[in-house]
Amino acid sequence: MITIGVLGYGYWGPNLVRNFAELPDARVVRVSDVRLDRLERVTARYPATKVGTSANDVIDDPSVDAVVIATPVHTHFELGMAALRSGKHVWMEKPLAATSDQAARLLDEADRRGLALMVDHTFVFAAAVQKMRDLTHAGELGDLQYYDSVRINLGHFQSDVNVLWDLAVHDLSIMDCLLEESPVAVSATGLAHVSGSPENIAYLTMFFDATLIGHIHVNWLAPVKIRRTLLGGTRRMLVFDDLEASDKIKIYDRGVSVSFSADKLATMRVGYRMGDMWSPQLALREPLHAAARHFVDVITAKATPISDGHAGLRIVKLLEAASQSLACQGRPISVGRRALV
Amino acid sequence: MITIGVLGYGYWGPNLVRNFAELPDARVVRVSDVRLDRLERVTARYPATKVGTSANDVIDDPSVDAVVIATPVHTHFELGMAALRSGKHVWMEKPLAATSDQAARLLDEADRRGLALMVDHTFVFAAAVQKMRDLTHAGELGDLQYYDSVRINLGHFQSDVNVLWDLAVHDLSIMDCLLEESPVAVSATGLAHVSGSPENIAYLTMFFDATLIGHIHVNWLAPVKIRRTLLGGTRRMLVFDDLEASDKIKIYDRGVSVSFSADKLATMRVGYRMGDMWSPQLALREPLHAAARHFVDVITAKATPISDGHAGLRIVKLLEAASQSLACQGRPISVGRRALV
Amino acid sequence: MITIGVLGYGYWGPNLVRNFAELPDARVVRVSDVRLDRLERVTARYPATKVGTSANDVIDDPSVDAVVIATPVHTHFELGMAALRSGKHVWMEKPLAATSDQAARLLDEADRRGLALMVDHTFVFAAAVQKMRDLTHAGELGDLQYYDSVRINLGHFQSDVNVLWDLAVHDLSIMDCLLEESPVAVSATGLAHVSGSPENIAYLTMFFDATLIGHIHVNWLAPVKIRRTLLGGTRRMLVFDDLEASDKIKIYDRGVSVSFSADKLATMRVGYRMGDMWSPQLALREPLHAAARHFVDVITAKATPISDGHAGLRIVKLLEAASQSLACQGRPISVGRRALV
Amino acid sequence: MITIGVLGYGYWGPNLVRNFAELPDARVVRVSDVRLDRLERVTARYPATKVGTSANDVIDDPSVDAVVIATPVHTHFELGMAALRSGKHVWMEKPLAATSDQAARLLDEADRRGLALMVDHTFVFAAAVQKMRDLTHAGELGDLQYYDSVRINLGHFQSDVNVLWDLAVHDLSIMDCLLEESPVAVSATGLAHVSGSPENIAYLTMFFDATLIGHIHVNWLAPVKIRRTLLGGTRRMLVFDDLEASDKIKIYDRGVSVSFSADKLATMRVGYRMGDMWSPQLALREPLHAAARHFVDVITAKATPISDGHAGLRIVKLLEAASQSLACQGRPISVGRRALV
Repeated sequence: MITIGVLGYGYWGPNLVRNFAELPDARVVRVSDVRLDRLERVTARYPATKVGTSANDVIDDPSVDAVVIATPVHTHFELGMAALRSGKHVWMEKPLAATSDQAARLLDEADRRGLALMVDHTFVFAAAVQKMRDLTHAGELGDLQYYDSVRINLGHFQSDVNVLWDLAVHDLSIMDCLLEESPVAVSATGLAHVSGSPENIAYLTMFFDATLIGHIHVNWLAPVKIRRTLLGGTRRMLVFDDLEASDKIKIYDRGVSVSFSADKLATMRVGYRMGDMWSPQLALREPLHAAARHFVDVITAKATPISDGHAGLRIVKLLEAASQSLACQGRPISVGRRALV
Repeated sequence: MITIGVLGYGYWGPNLVRNFAELPDARVVRVSDVRLDRLERVTARYPATKVGTSANDVIDDPSVDAVVIATPVHTHFELGMAALRSGKHVWMEKPLAATSDQAARLLDEADRRGLALMVDHTFVFAAAVQKMRDLTHAGELGDLQYYDSVRINLGHFQSDVNVLWDLAVHDLSIMDCLLEESPVAVSATGLAHVSGSPENIAYLTMFFDATLIGHIHVNWLAPVKIRRTLLGGTRRMLVFDDLEASDKIKIYDRGVSVSFSADKLATMRVGYRMGDMWSPQLALREPLHAAARHFVDVITAKATPISDGHAGLRIVKLLEAASQSLACQGRPISVGRRALV
Repeated sequence: MITIGVLGYGYWGPNLVRNFAELPDARVVRVSDVRLDRLERVTARYPATKVGTSANDVIDDPSVDAVVIATPVHTHFELGMAALRSGKHVWMEKPLAATSDQAARLLDEADRRGLALMVDHTFVFAAAVQKMRDLTHAGELGDLQYYDSVRINLGHFQSDVNVLWDLAVHDLSIMDCLLEESPVAVSATGLAHVSGSPENIAYLTMFFDATLIGHIHVNWLAPVKIRRTLLGGTRRMLVFDDLEASDKIKIYDRGVSVSFSADKLATMRVGYRMGDMWSPQLALREPLHAAARHFVDVITAKATPISDGHAGLRIVKLLEAASQSLACQGRPISVGRRALV
Repeated sequence: MITIGVLGYGYWGPNLVRNFAELPDARVVRVSDVRLDRLERVTARYPATKVGTSANDVIDDPSVDAVVIATPVHTHFELGMAALRSGKHVWMEKPLAATSDQAARLLDEADRRGLALMVDHTFVFAAAVQKMRDLTHAGELGDLQYYDSVRINLGHFQSDVNVLWDLAVHDLSIMDCLLEESPVAVSATGLAHVSGSPENIAYLTMFFDATLIGHIHVNWLAPVKIRRTLLGGTRRMLVFDDLEASDKIKIYDRGVSVSFSADKLATMRVGYRMGDMWSPQLALREPLHAAARHFVDVITAKATPISDGHAGLRIVKLLEAASQSLACQGRPISVGRRALV
């Protein structure tokens, strides 16, 4: 039985508590939040769970094995370090930290102490993303040509991070899971429509060594909700629409073959392949349930989580570079290669 | 009766000939193309129309009032200048020319000779775009916040221009029609997946003096066809989906109101407005028909076309800047302000 | 505080318990089910709720104010009568009973004892249906011309009632809520694809005195899920798609005007009106929550529920007639007029 | 070269003329219509085609090989007989005739004279329907369980036939092509919302000897256009949405397996199979083009058309029975079995 303390019961906290509570070998023993009304909701649903306004009470509780941190990004580092130093395994909401330096230090601390540090890159545990990973790793799409994602809706405006850190992080974690290589440079643009608050619309291009390009469009101020990812490959192309009730993934046997005429004009001829479409049935399960299951498993088995601190650090580095580029109207910014893991 | 000579009977030419042929006060008297099989198709449909492989025969024909140029972009300047010098009114397929210098010279030549020079920015004549213009100019959307467009499909790869010059030109012409101001800088990224051919996927951000951002995603190598434009405003937001058979335009009474708490923390509070949606009925007509009608009308009335050489030049300047930025991985490039017209 | 006992914790029971548990002035004190694994799930989620396999223990418990019956249809009458005789208010899952005779007796018993008898016609409490009712009652659609509904999916096959009693009951309750008059006759067709089990696909036409027709298509064996209702009126037409995340209701200013020429040929001329579409924003709330709220309110206020036993009886009468027609390949069956209420 | 005379240039006539005109081995030599404005449009588009108001002039013209009849249904018999008696091959718009007696006499006349009589069941020539036929005939769907079609839109009201004869005829011709057997009885319901004009909304159920049911919903007074057919089979289920630009056909590996427990309760257990979906790429071509091609081919080869008079007669018989049932509020009407062909 793994005992869990949860810090933060705002937007995502209730989902975390519910999913950990449903695991037969885990128990949510403490929840902290600064707002009393939220704690009342915890008590109404989970009368056996202790609640309080102090995060430190949770972190210091010797009966807690692991701490789940679902507080604002600027608190991730301090709370995460305190939890690790208190000997707790840590589940950190995305992004891992507000800076890559903080992320690296959290990662080092966890490594040194032999504690699990897992970042909640929930999408990595979605059946659709795992299917996409299986297909790409098996070469079903051929060489990847582009990753293009639109992730927009109305809300939820954040006050301490811009929309890239809130929404693009999902795509960066999916790309981190799918692709063999990491971006070598990024270019980002965007705008804050509310003066004094972070950018609420942003566009992020990622460049690679290979013939591959990535692009993410995120927006908190869109009239409609869209969650659609295109994955182009030389053999096939894939569309992932996360809002579809069924048929979330569609694989198209479509593409082009280009040839040049042999004469001196070398005229380009393009042939278009328009083949069948196929949609694999996906397991119906909540990705967060699978992630919670994984966290408890890696603690029990003293293993390394899939979305570990290294993944968290890689993504924070990209977000840092993207914010830097965004401040300079798209000026390209180099990013360090993926560290050998 | 306006007599028309058409140069080029490839992808778009048949649509041009059909629409001009249907006007009661216009007659397509000549068509030229380098390919004989295409000319045979002209003859089968329009036995009264003279055909031939020489563009100059059309340009020099004294019985021709206006020349419609639907040939590859790199030929626009030379053919356009020849037609103007021969005293013909000119309809030029988009983009107006391969460089802004060429565009400016065409514009000057037409002005000096008092001839109509119209660029086929077809979308400007679409009922949906005219409705969008009416709504924005009447202030129904409030202050515009963003223009975001996705224009992707499989094909038609071009060999002499990249995908921005082929597809983004549509959005640039729509923006030129909708917006009160022009971009002051652009940042573009993209990639050519076929070595030796132009970029087939591109992303273009446009910066403005106002709190406004524009973005266009164009792609010749997408598994699905998407034609969707979001137009965000402080009062309302609009979605234009050109592939919808009906309800192409949807206007959402949605948005945010942001306030900051009076205390020293100045916490941001965001209120979300989720109101009704409304879809105005649009006239059912082919935009190209309206454009052809307009061209014949301005010739007859010695008036200036809506999508004139000035609009064509503004757009070519943006495309030039975009290509420059694209070659430098998104480095921002300044663009001259809209010339007073 | 109203205390609730729930009979049956199968497909719908968990939703009932959850919604009643969330009401501040109600408490689910007992749950019964014949399956122990289900009772274990109750205990895991609601440790304070007593569980057991005996429905009578719940019915006889003097600390229980109201009994919620979510057991198979063939048990509704017996359990409902027992609960009423034990002085309990009754919430009955749809349909009210297996026969109109049973439904009438339940209704009489409740009336005689002054107890609330509410049928769970959940859709009557959906924001979309209430909007449809407001619009029709305000005359926004003009005179109603047709109600056409498709309610199909894969599952959930029932063994004791056919698909009309399971799914068409939703539409019958919506129609009962929307329309000023009741059907005077029905014609139904359908088929059982599994020998020995009830019909899994059915079509039901309803005839009225007015120029109005109703039709419902229900199917447990469809590859895709569809929940779409068309409501035609002389002034406007409405589409209700319950699977849309937003814009569930769309109102079209469309219709026809028919005239006949004055000459002896009396040629029919039809004009088509193609006007705007409008989608009102709907309250976001779970219909079952509103229904549970209503049940507790009417008990507290000694009032009559909206979806009372009379509504339940009217619908069971239609289902009886429909089953009779279905057995005779669509032979029309008369139905008694709506009782004055 | 087959020479064609066309009677009627209303809604469908222009499509017929265009498609025949595009065939290299056919020529539309004459067109008749009672309205002069329509004849002017013919002349504008096809200057070489003779026009006139007299159908007989076309029928009697010895230079005409085949007559295409696109006039109102009540004129089909008289014009068809006249054309056959004049030795012309006949293409008849659907339905073949206004009564089964007339249809049978046309069929006999054509047979006796060795002339081609083809009914324009256009959908039989659609790539989607041919794919459906190939799949069902190859057993890919298993035993068919139901055919369910919705074919609704606003317009085009007819004055001489009801909506079944106008729209359901499409589905009847598709079913005639797909299914191994014909309906043995029908039940139809419907309503005329305009007094004095034919029914504009109708529902038609078809019964078969096998465990198969068919249903068609047609409506001229719907706010939205829907063209969607479900085809259920024991092995797979298919959805055909004719309004989809691509992926018109989707095949779902979904279904149920039902078993009964061995004990005396014989409880029904239903297992649901939720497998992959697959959408075959279809040829892009206009169905009417393929139909026109076929007509010219069978004339040239002295062969029998696919959608011949026998198919036309079978369908008219079903329409007659359906109208009879509709007049009696769904009373089931027996239909003669499919004649051996």
